[in-house]
Amino acid sequence: MERVSAARVEQAKILLDRALGGSKLLTEAVSLEPYGYDRSEAAPVTPDIVVRAKSIQDIEKTLAIAQETGVPVTPRSGGSGKTGGAVPSAGGIVLCTQGMQNILEINPNDMLAVVEPGVILSDFHHAVEREGLFYPPDPNSAAYCCLGGNLAENAGGPRAFKYGVTRDYVLGCETVLMGGQPLQLGKRTVKGVTGYDLTALMVGSEGTLGVLTKATLKLIAKPAQVHTILAQFPSVRVAGSAVSAFVRRGLVPRCLELLDAGALEALRTFNLPLDADAQALLILEVDGEPNQCDADLEQLGNACDEVGATSVWVAQSESQRDRLWAARRDLSPAIRKLSAHKLSEDVVVPRSRIPDLLDEVARISEKTTVRTLAYGHAGDGNLHVNFLWNHDHEIPNVNLAIEALFREVIAMHGTLSGEHGIGILKAPYLHLEQSPELIALQKQIKQVFDPHNLLNPGKIFPTSGTHRAC
Amino acid sequence: MERVSAARVEQAKILLDRALGGSKLLTEAVSLEPYGYDRSEAAPVTPDIVVRAKSIQDIEKTLAIAQETGVPVTPRSGGSGKTGGAVPSAGGIVLCTQGMQNILEINPNDMLAVVEPGVILSDFHHAVEREGLFYPPDPNSAAYCCLGGNLAENAGGPRAFKYGVTRDYVLGCETVLMGGQPLQLGKRTVKGVTGYDLTALMVGSEGTLGVLTKATLKLIAKPAQVHTILAQFPSVRVAGSAVSAFVRRGLVPRCLELLDAGALEALRTFNLPLDADAQALLILEVDGEPNQCDADLEQLGNACDEVGATSVWVAQSESQRDRLWAARRDLSPAIRKLSAHKLSEDVVVPRSRIPDLLDEVARISEKTTVRTLAYGHAGDGNLHVNFLWNHDHEIPNVNLAIEALFREVIAMHGTLSGEHGIGILKAPYLHLEQSPELIALQKQIKQVFDPHNLLNPGKIFPTSGTHRAC
Repeated sequence: MERVSAARVEQAKILLDRALGGSKLLTEAVSLEPYGYDRSEAAPVTPDIVVRAKSIQDIEKTLAIAQETGVPVTPRSGGSGKTGGAVPSAGGIVLCTQGMQNILEINPNDMLAVVEPGVILSDFHHAVEREGLFYPPDPNSAAYCCLGGNLAENAGGPRAFKYGVTRDYVLGCETVLMGGQPLQLGKRTVKGVTGYDLTALMVGSEGTLGVLTKATLKLIAKPAQVHTILAQFPSVRVAGSAVSAFVRRGLVPRCLELLDAGALEALRTFNLPLDADAQALLILEVDGEPNQCDADLEQLGNACDEVGATSVWVAQSESQRDRLWAARRDLSPAIRKLSAHKLSEDVVVPRSRIPDLLDEVARISEKTTVRTLAYGHAGDGNLHVNFLWNHDHEIPNVNLAIEALFREVIAMHGTLSGEHGIGILKAPYLHLEQSPELIALQKQIKQVFDPHNLLNPGKIFPTSGTHRAC
Repeated sequence: MERVSAARVEQAKILLDRALGGSKLLTEAVSLEPYGYDRSEAAPVTPDIVVRAKSIQDIEKTLAIAQETGVPVTPRSGGSGKTGGAVPSAGGIVLCTQGMQNILEINPNDMLAVVEPGVILSDFHHAVEREGLFYPPDPNSAAYCCLGGNLAENAGGPRAFKYGVTRDYVLGCETVLMGGQPLQLGKRTVKGVTGYDLTALMVGSEGTLGVLTKATLKLIAKPAQVHTILAQFPSVRVAGSAVSAFVRRGLVPRCLELLDAGALEALRTFNLPLDADAQALLILEVDGEPNQCDADLEQLGNACDEVGATSVWVAQSESQRDRLWAARRDLSPAIRKLSAHKLSEDVVVPRSRIPDLLDEVARISEKTTVRTLAYGHAGDGNLHVNFLWNHDHEIPNVNLAIEALFREVIAMHGTLSGEHGIGILKAPYLHLEQSPELIALQKQIKQVFDPHNLLNPGKIFPTSGTHRAC
C-alpha cells in the first residue's frame, strides 16, 4: 500500500505535539521500529509517529488531527496479533492504547466488568477469579495480549468450545470514530435489542471501524472444579472418532484440543507422559460442580478407551495441569524450532469434517512437498495448519499449499479464519469465501464509519500491495 | 408516516402480477386487512398489496419491483411481534414469508439446522428434539411465531437466562436486499472471524436491512432432564433477594421467571397450587444430567427457604410442568381481562436493580394513578411492566407513566427493550437511550442497505407520524 506523504506527517506531528504534549509521542526511528510489526509473518512497516494514549481524550484528539491532516492511523494494544492487523501498512500514526490498563469495575452482583483496552488478558483473568467470577476467552497469548486486541480480533482460545468467543462476552463498548467522535455502544444488561447491534459489528472489525476505549464485559461464575485429561491415540483418525463420540453423547468438555503426529513430535521436547507409539493426542478439560465433573471425566475417558486410545491420563494435581497447558501454550514456538520458517493458518470446518480436513492437509503436503502439521480446537472445527520450510526456493510451493488449503476449507463449507482475523495476510484470499457483493457492502459500511479510509487501511479487504514477509 | 401514492402501487401491482402470477398476490381489501396489524398495540395500517412468497426468487423479484416503482415493503412471517414491526406504516407491499416453512436440514454431526423463515418455532423445537438436539430460544409465542420474525426481533424467552437469545444461535443467514440482491452471510461453523459480523447486524434489525430467506442455526445437545419449581414469597422484595442469592452461589437455572402481586393475581384463575398469602412468585427450571439437576434443585430450594419463601413446590410430573408453563404462557391474555386496556413494556435493568425497578414501578403507579403489574425474566433483568386502564381519559396519564418508566430504566443503565424490539411503539423513546450521533450512524448504515428507505420504513428510528393505537 502507498505510504502517506512526508508533508502530511509533518503537519500531524506539529498538531499532535501541540494537542498531546511531546511525552506521549514517539517520532525517532529507533523507538518507532518495534511498532512496525506484530506476532505474524506480515512484513513490518515502520510508522512515522506513535501516540501512546493515556485517555479517551488523547484518542479523540489523535483521530481528529489524523482526519484533518489525512494521515492514516493503525490502532494497537498488545501487538500480539497473528495476521498483521497492527502493522501500519501505510505508515502514519500507530495509536497505542497499551497504557490504558485500568480495570475500572468488577461487579459481582451484575456479573460484569468494565475495562480499558490495555489490560493484559491474564491480569484480567486473575482479577475476576479472585472475586469468584470467570471470563472464559483464553487465547494462548493470554500472558501478553490485551483486551483491546482481543475485541478487535474477536479472540477465541481452547475454552471457546464450551464457552464461546470474545464477542459472546462483550455487552457494550466505548469507541472513537475517525475524526474524533466518541460513541457509546451496547449496554450493561445481558439482554437488549434497542437498535442495530453495533457492538457485535465492532467486535472483530480489526480496528477498521473505530478505536476501542472501554468495554463492558459479561462475567460468569467461576467453575468449582477443573479436571484435565491427556488422551493419546494410534492415529489422528482415531482421535477424530473420539471427538465425534463426545459430540454424539452430548458431552461438552470446556476444552477439546487435538494435536496430529507432527504437532505431537514438537511436544516431545516437554516433560509430559507421552506414549512412544502415539500418533495423535487430545487435551480435554471439564469443569463445573464436583459430581458433574467426575461424571464427565468418566464418560470422556470411557469414550476414548472405546475408540482405541493408547492411553488416557488424568492430571492429578494443579502443577500437572499447569505443565500440560504450558506445553500447549509453548507449542507454537516449539514448532518454530522444527524448521527455519513456519506459517500457521487458522481455518475452521464444520466439526464433522475435521478428519477430512486432516486427510486433505496430508494430500496437499504430499503434492506440494511442503511439510505440514496441524493442531487446535477440534471441538470447534478450528485447526491451526502449519506449513514448515527451510529454503527460499520452497516459497512458491508454500503459497500453492496455502491456497489449496483455503480452497478445500471453503469447499467443506468452512471459513478462512476462526480466531486470528483476516488482517493483511488473508486479505488476498477473502474472495474465496465471500462474494463480490458482500465485500462491496462491507466496504460501504466501512465508509460510513471512516469516509476517507484512514483507520487501519489495508486490512481485511484486499489492496494491490498486500504481501507476506515470505 | 405518509402513505405511498396510488399511482406507484398500481404500477407495482402490474409488474408483480406479471413476475409472480396472481396466485401469490392479495389485492382485495378484505384479504389485505389481516396483514395490517401484529400482536402489539400499534395502530393498524392496511397494505395495498400482499405478496405470499414461496421461494427466494419470489422475494428477489418483489424487492426488485419495489425498488423500481418506489413502493415500500414490510416483511412479515408470523405477525406475532409486540412493537408493530410488521405493520406496514406507509402502506405498499407486505412481503409475507410464512409460506416458506421447510426445515431444510437438521445435522446432528455438525449440530446445526437450516430453516426457512416461515417455520413455526414450536414445530422446530419438536423436530430438533426428536433428534436429541435442542434449540433454546423460546418466546411465549412459540406455538405461532415464526423463525423469520424471531431473527428479525432477536427473540428471547424464559430460557435465555441460561442459554442466551436468538442471536447466539444464528451461525449464518441468506438475505435479500432492497432491489433484489441476495447475500449469503455468516458460516456453517461455530467459530469464524472473516470480515464484519453482518449476521449479528442482521439479527435484530427488525426487517429494515434485508429480507431473511434462510438461516443456519446452531443446536446443542438436548438436556437429559428438566425440573420445574414454583416458589412463592410474602413480597416481591423477598423474591428479589432469592434471585440475588442464586446469582451469588453461581446457580444458573435455565429459567428464572418473576411475577409480582398483580401478575400473581391474574395467575389465580389457573389451577395451580398458589398460597393465599403469597405476594410474589418465582418459576425456576433446571436442566442437565440427573445428578446435577438434583443438586441444583436442592440448592435452589434451600436458597428460597433461607430468604423466607412461603412455599417451594417441585412439579412431580410432565403434566404438572406443562400446566405451570401453560399458565405462564397465558399470563398475558389473563392480564388483558383485568381491565379494558393494557400496554406491556419490555424493559431491562442490570439484574441487581430489579428490586429498585419494582419499587420505581410502584411509585410511578401511585403518582400517575395508573394500575401497574410486572413479571418476566428476572435472571436477565428483563421485566414486562404492564399498564392497565379502563377509560380513555386515563390515556395521558398512561403515557406519562410509560415515559417515566423509560427514564428510570435508562437512569439505572438499563435498556428500552429486552426482546420485543423498538418497532413503531418505542421509536419515539429511542433518544432516551441513544445519542443523536449513534442514531445518525445507524441511519447511515440503513442507507447502505436500502438507499431509498423502502424496506420497513418508520421502524426503529422516530418519524413524525409515529403513534400508538391508544
